[in-house]
Amino acid sequence: MNTHDPAARAWLPSANGHADFPLQNLPLGIFSTADGKQRPGTAIGDSILDLKAALAARLLTGEAANAIEACAETLNPLFALGAPARQALRTQLFALLHESSPARAELLHQTSACTLHVPAAIGDYTDFYAGIHHARNGGLLFRPDNPLMPNYKYVPVAYHGRASSVRSSPTPLRRPQGQRKLPEEQAPTYGPCRNLDYELEMGIWIGPGNQPGAPIPIAEAAHHIAGFCLLNDWSARDIQSWESQPLGPFLAKNFQTSISPWVITPEALAPFRAAQPPRPNGDPAPLPHLFNTADQARGALDLTLEVTIHTAQMRANNQPPARLSLGNALHLYWTPAQMVAHHASNGCDLHPGDLFGTGTISSPEPTGWGALMEITRGGREPLTLPNGETRKFLEDGDEITLHARAQRPGHASIGFGPCRGLVLPS
Amino acid sequence: MNTHDPAARAWLPSANGHADFPLQNLPLGIFSTADGKQRPGTAIGDSILDLKAALAARLLTGEAANAIEACAETLNPLFALGAPARQALRTQLFALLHESSPARAELLHQTSACTLHVPAAIGDYTDFYAGIHHARNGGLLFRPDNPLMPNYKYVPVAYHGRASSVRSSPTPLRRPQGQRKLPEEQAPTYGPCRNLDYELEMGIWIGPGNQPGAPIPIAEAAHHIAGFCLLNDWSARDIQSWESQPLGPFLAKNFQTSISPWVITPEALAPFRAAQPPRPNGDPAPLPHLFNTADQARGALDLTLEVTIHTAQMRANNQPPARLSLGNALHLYWTPAQMVAHHASNGCDLHPGDLFGTGTISSPEPTGWGALMEITRGGREPLTLPNGETRKFLEDGDEITLHARAQRPGHASIGFGPCRGLVLPS
Repeated sequence: MNTHDPAARAWLPSANGHADFPLQNLPLGIFSTADGKQRPGTAIGDSILDLKAALAARLLTGEAANAIEACAETLNPLFALGAPARQALRTQLFALLHESSPARAELLHQTSACTLHVPAAIGDYTDFYAGIHHARNGGLLFRPDNPLMPNYKYVPVAYHGRASSVRSSPTPLRRPQGQRKLPEEQAPTYGPCRNLDYELEMGIWIGPGNQPGAPIPIAEAAHHIAGFCLLNDWSARDIQSWESQPLGPFLAKNFQTSISPWVITPEALAPFRAAQPPRPNGDPAPLPHLFNTADQARGALDLTLEVTIHTAQMRANNQPPARLSLGNALHLYWTPAQMVAHHASNGCDLHPGDLFGTGTISSPEPTGWGALMEITRGGREPLTLPNGETRKFLEDGDEITLHARAQRPGHASIGFGPCRGLVLPS
Repeated sequence: MNTHDPAARAWLPSANGHADFPLQNLPLGIFSTADGKQRPGTAIGDSILDLKAALAARLLTGEAANAIEACAETLNPLFALGAPARQALRTQLFALLHESSPARAELLHQTSACTLHVPAAIGDYTDFYAGIHHARNGGLLFRPDNPLMPNYKYVPVAYHGRASSVRSSPTPLRRPQGQRKLPEEQAPTYGPCRNLDYELEMGIWIGPGNQPGAPIPIAEAAHHIAGFCLLNDWSARDIQSWESQPLGPFLAKNFQTSISPWVITPEALAPFRAAQPPRPNGDPAPLPHLFNTADQARGALDLTLEVTIHTAQMRANNQPPARLSLGNALHLYWTPAQMVAHHASNGCDLHPGDLFGTGTISSPEPTGWGALMEITRGGREPLTLPNGETRKFLEDGDEITLHARAQRPGHASIGFGPCRGLVLPS
């Protein structure tokens, strides 16, 4: 069976035409029901198929069965097995859920009655900075004449983030406290963040790792990716501007990072691969260890990305969320494979379940800017929402949701599911 | 029994007068013998006491027995239990090894025949920058008029490092490759690091964690520390200077971090606690959430720190290692408890087995500078070793060893055991 056949239908009615999880997606995650037991599942329409139950019912075989057998409370063992196990699982799940197969409602749980968890034990979390328009917009606030650092077009710039505070959507966000100092203040004070922001990113889950000391060649780098998610790199801008010299962001970022809980596989995204957009004239070519013809031709992802805000006032007045931005993942300056190859280029060992953030993905045009810092130019130009409220930064009660959608003529469109987070008071 | 009694002797002769591991130290670690099975042990003289064997022989009871029962291949469960379990274990091990007890040679392994492992599964690794003389020396290279950033005396500056590449001494170090660009070069190239350096740091092992979102009050911060080690934050200076803007060091640091494998407990170090040296006139007081009278009075550590180099030529000529620096941990600007309180001050959750580095510990005087970057002023003033060799940075075949020693009148002196690493060619 062709698991990308746009005409294929599932025996579960809610799957057919589902915005995020039709039969052609089959994302993987870790869920629990009222019994609290974490276990692997796949999203299908408005439901979750319990993969341990499918295994127990002998509906999985071979590599797919072995992979689910190995997974308990996390997907790390499945990630470690790489593409063959994922592909075997995808093929079997497609057949199992296809309308030509008998309905197996006993394997399903209503998603609305389940809790979704961070799908893997994250060994290390790394945040890249591959959104060039974001890097330029941020740089313009501090260095109007020279917004991009000289290394930007050579190095897929990144820094290490905090693995422990990565949480699954829709875990709310407690406004952090911290040291912050406004330019007009003599000395810093400790108190609630005054300039709380979101950042629209994609997450990249690492599959098979490398041996310590052994770089990953760019031609093999894509094989080390297990899947993708959405990632909100919540940022306390006032803490960030005070603490970050000279070693980079720390407490301004590590109080929480939110991810969408479903792992969208490379197999599901295959129809939405795209050429890496050509670099503008005058930009240097990537160094050889970061350049691969196949990666340049098919390594990027054509995904529509949207951010919405739902304020307390909107909810009280039954108003819908308002859009903050609409953009596309093609605005990343580096491909996911380039990020993997760069990360391992010094021999640093990656492991199954490591997580990368891409960095904030902004479009060239303001309608696709991925953080309030950019939209309000550091808080200097407040944004007016459709209901008349204004925002420099996030206020308590604001809920931010990231969305990603893959759509191409001749293919069933799929989505990532929301990455949601409500700001609670400090 | 007083586990600090300087007159106390062990039934194992090699323990008595041992430079690092007399009866009064009793550090904890994870070791394996030829069978490859990782298990907890304590260092005593030239041997390791197998704690699982001691448990099986019913020589441990109560909380100590429960703690060792819970540990398999890592010390994380013991770390999670905090001071009561550690203290119970210390008291029982002291009695078990004391000369008044029967010798139990069947529980011992020669350390030289064992492999020592990273003692905990490290959830997250954070590197601080609390060595003010190092920060000033580094800053002087780039900003002669303004070496310390304005935040330095308010913020225990830190950044996230890579947990996956923390290795136990004496794992050798492969010279990393990476992107580097000398100021006189037009564009960067990818190749072996040309300016490889070490950094003398202490490591801090985290014990009991905090709930997500809940800061740790400074008065309680010390209770979250399970122990200490030595830490060499190997640094590729040429990669670092090219990649670090604007988000801090990444590949320049994450190819390997070496630690000494024994966890020196807060109980063993209690006699070597000291007052935090007073801040120079004009320095601001710590903000209230980082200030605690008891911590200022007893939160620092009086430890002599030494770095030695053993080059290939020295080894070939049977010459001893040469000292690169001799300093003291009292030169840290922030106490370990201040680091813990700062890290959790935004609600970031810490977990048992997290590791902190203190940052490079340099003395005010050049004989105690903790990295070649400082000693050779960025490679501009080569160092001449006693055998006539010179070094700007590390060469292949150089072995760097860090040592820490606690010594005070009226107390048995203890050591950390070496943190060793040999530089292998790229």
